[in-house]
Amino acid sequence: MPAASALHTASVVSLLTALARRELKAETLLHALFEHIDAREPVVRAFAHLDRAKALEQARQCDAGAVLGPLHGLPVGVKDVIDTADLPTQYGSPIYTNHQPKADAAAIALMRRAGAYVLGKAVTTEFATFPPGPTTNPHNPAHTPGGSSSGSAAGVAAQLFPVAFGTQTTGSIIRPASFCGVVGYKPSYGTLPTVGVKAISYCLDTLGVFARSVEDVAAFTGALSGRALAVHAQSATPKLGFCLTPYFDAALPEVRNLFATLANTLSRTGATVKDFSLPAPFEKMNDAQDFIWRFEMARCLSDEHRRHRTHIREPLLGQLDTGLALEPTEYDAAMAIARQARQIFSAAMGDHDVLIVPSAPGEAPLGLNATGNPAFNRTWSLLHSPCVHVPFGHGPNGLPIGFQVVGRIGDDARTLAVAHWLQQHLEH
Amino acid sequence: MPAASALHTASVVSLLTALARRELKAETLLHALFEHIDAREPVVRAFAHLDRAKALEQARQCDAGAVLGPLHGLPVGVKDVIDTADLPTQYGSPIYTNHQPKADAAAIALMRRAGAYVLGKAVTTEFATFPPGPTTNPHNPAHTPGGSSSGSAAGVAAQLFPVAFGTQTTGSIIRPASFCGVVGYKPSYGTLPTVGVKAISYCLDTLGVFARSVEDVAAFTGALSGRALAVHAQSATPKLGFCLTPYFDAALPEVRNLFATLANTLSRTGATVKDFSLPAPFEKMNDAQDFIWRFEMARCLSDEHRRHRTHIREPLLGQLDTGLALEPTEYDAAMAIARQARQIFSAAMGDHDVLIVPSAPGEAPLGLNATGNPAFNRTWSLLHSPCVHVPFGHGPNGLPIGFQVVGRIGDDARTLAVAHWLQQHLEH
Repeated sequence: MPAASALHTASVVSLLTALARRELKAETLLHALFEHIDAREPVVRAFAHLDRAKALEQARQCDAGAVLGPLHGLPVGVKDVIDTADLPTQYGSPIYTNHQPKADAAAIALMRRAGAYVLGKAVTTEFATFPPGPTTNPHNPAHTPGGSSSGSAAGVAAQLFPVAFGTQTTGSIIRPASFCGVVGYKPSYGTLPTVGVKAISYCLDTLGVFARSVEDVAAFTGALSGRALAVHAQSATPKLGFCLTPYFDAALPEVRNLFATLANTLSRTGATVKDFSLPAPFEKMNDAQDFIWRFEMARCLSDEHRRHRTHIREPLLGQLDTGLALEPTEYDAAMAIARQARQIFSAAMGDHDVLIVPSAPGEAPLGLNATGNPAFNRTWSLLHSPCVHVPFGHGPNGLPIGFQVVGRIGDDARTLAVAHWLQQHLEH
Repeated sequence: MPAASALHTASVVSLLTALARRELKAETLLHALFEHIDAREPVVRAFAHLDRAKALEQARQCDAGAVLGPLHGLPVGVKDVIDTADLPTQYGSPIYTNHQPKADAAAIALMRRAGAYVLGKAVTTEFATFPPGPTTNPHNPAHTPGGSSSGSAAGVAAQLFPVAFGTQTTGSIIRPASFCGVVGYKPSYGTLPTVGVKAISYCLDTLGVFARSVEDVAAFTGALSGRALAVHAQSATPKLGFCLTPYFDAALPEVRNLFATLANTLSRTGATVKDFSLPAPFEKMNDAQDFIWRFEMARCLSDEHRRHRTHIREPLLGQLDTGLALEPTEYDAAMAIARQARQIFSAAMGDHDVLIVPSAPGEAPLGLNATGNPAFNRTWSLLHSPCVHVPFGHGPNGLPIGFQVVGRIGDDARTLAVAHWLQQHLEH
C-alpha cells in the first residue's frame, strides 16, 4: 500500500485487501482522493456531481460498521446516467437538472450491499449520445477524453477514483478507455443489470467498468456479480486471433503501426497469433447497430422528445425527429442479422481464445466538440460479446492507444484472463 | 356507434373512427365512462389511481386541438407499473406511495403522440409479482381477476375503459385475460418498449394490451408501434397445431372439455387442426423461466430489498432473500435453454400457422388471496413468442375460460389475424 500522499495511485485489489483488514480507513482513503481531486479536477472536469460531505458520511459509516462484503469501503465513480438515491442524476441533460431519483439503480444497490459507496457522479455526454460534456483528456486537456462515459474514463485515468461504472451502447466504454489510457471492460450483454440506468437502446445498453488494470475491473465485477471473474496467474499461453475488422481503413498510422508490430511482440511471449477474418453476416453488423440504435433511441427518449424538445441539442434532436419514422421492418431485418451473428460467432472463432481488435482509430482527437469514431466498437456492442480495452503504446501526440480483447458471448472469465495475461506480458 | 348511455360497450375501432371524424367528442365518451365507473368500480376496484379532473382536461384538449394521430381521443387504462408523468405510479407497493415519476414511460409518450390519453392507473399486484391488489373479478367478486395485470383485465371486462396496457413476465397478461373473459395480447418480446416500466425481469418483461376483441388489441398496438398489425377479413383458413403442453395434468375439467370439443368445432369451420408436441428442450422451459425470473427479480428489486424490506410482503420478501444467492452458472444454463428453444421454434412448428394452447388451468379460482397458476404461460414468456388469449366458453361457476393463440417469434401479424379469424368463427 502506498503512503497516504499516494493513495490515489493504489489499485482496487490492494485497496480492498487493506480496507477489509482495517489496515486502511475508508475515510483516510477518501481524504487522499479529495486532495488529488483538488489538484486535478479543475482541468479534467470529470465530475457531474460531487458532494464531499455525503461521501465522507458514507466512508465514516464503512469505518464504523461491519465489513458488509467484498467491496468494503471502496469509493466508486458512477456515470451520471445511472440512478443514485442519495445524489442527483442528470443524464447529461438540462431537462433533468437537480433530478433526484427515488431509487438506486440495481447495480448501485448491489455495490452498496457489497460494501462500496458512491464517491461522485461522473460526466456523461447528453443521454450517453453525442453532445459532449465538459470533461477533458487527463493526458492533454485540448483533446477529447472520448465518450459517452467521459468522466468515468478520465476520472480513473486522472486517479480521482480507483474504479468507475460506465455504459456502452455504441462505443462508450472501449473508446474513452483507449483515449484516456485505462482499462475498460464491457461485459457480455446482461451480465450487470441495467435497471435504473437511463435507457438509450434496450438491446444494446451494457453496463461496464473502468479501472487501471484488468485485475481491478475483474475483481470489482466479480465481487459485484457473484461470478468467478477474478484473474489469476495462468501458465497456458493464449491463442489470439488478430481481427483488423472491415473498418481498418479508418485506422490512423499509430494504430496501423501497433497492429503491425504487436503480432511479433506477442509471438515472443509464446502466444499463438493468427489472422482472423469475420465471416458473413458480420460485414452488415455496423450498419445494423447504427439502425437499431437510432430506432430504439427515438423510442427510449420519446417522452423527452415530445415534451422538452427545446432542451435537446443537435444533432441528437435531429436523430430523434427522424428515428420515430424508421421502418419497423428494417429494424426487424437488422435484429435478424444480429441474431445470426450471435449464433455463429463462437464456432466461427475456431480455436482462438479471444480476438485482438482495434479499440479506436488512433489516439484521442484534438478538440472537445466530438468524442471520436466508434467504427471499431459497433459490431461488438450489437454482438453482445465481452470486450476489454488494454492500453499499449502512444500516438504522435504522446496520447495513449491500445487494443481490445474480444471474447465469445458469455466467456467473460477467459476474456479477462487473457487480457490480464497480455497486460502483464506487454509491460515487460 | 351506440347511444351515449352505452358508449362504455363500444369497441376501440369504432371509437377511433368516430373520434377521428369528430362525430364523437372525447369529453362525451369520458363522461359516459365515468358514469359506468360510478356503477361498477366500487365492487371491481380496478383503479389504483383515478383523477377525473385530469382525465377531463386531457379529453377537452383532444376536442379543442388537432387530430394528432391514429389514437385521437382514446382513453386508456394503464397498469400501475408503467410510469406516467401526470399521475402517481405506485408499482403496487407502499414504498412508492404518492411517487410521481419525472417522465412518461416510452409507450405512454408514444401513445400520447398518437393522440390517446391516460384515463387512470390500473391495479397491479405488488411489483407485478404475487401479492394481490384489491381488484375483484367483474363476473363474480368472490373470485380473483388473475394477476399481475389485475386492474387492466378487470377494467376492460367491466367496461371501465375500452383498452388497457398490461405487462407479462410470467403469465400476467394471458391469465387475467382468461379469468376476466377479455382478449389479452402479449406481443413478441421487445415489440413495445418497456422503458419506464418497473423492471422485474429484464429478459422476460413484456408490455402488452387488453381489449374486448382481437381487432381492438391489433388496431391499438399497430397504431402505437407503426407495425402492420391491424386485422382484416381473410379467406384462407388457418392451420392450427393443438398443443396441450407438458402441464396438461394441471388443467381442470372445463379446460379439458374445451380442448376435447374445440378441435371438432374448428374442423367444421374449415381450419386444419393437428396435434402438436413441443420438441426438446421445451420440457425444461417452465423451470428455466422460473429460475431466470427469481434470479433477475432479486436484482431488479435490489434497492427496495436493501432499504425497505419491512415494506415488502411475503412471499415476495422470501423470494428476494433467496434470489440474490442463486448461482449465476445456473442462470446461464437456463438462458442457454431459452436461446436454443428460440432458435428451433419456428422450424419446429412445421406448417402450422399458430399453436392453440391452454391459457390457464380453468376458470378464475375462488378467493382474492392468490392470482392463479401460470403453468401454461411460463414457457411462452421465456420463448418471447406472441400470445393472444381468445375467450371461449365458461366453467362450472359460469366464469369465462378460453385458449391462447401462440405464434412464431416476430410473427405477430399472422398470430393476430388467426386469433381474429377464430374469434369471429367461434362466435357463430
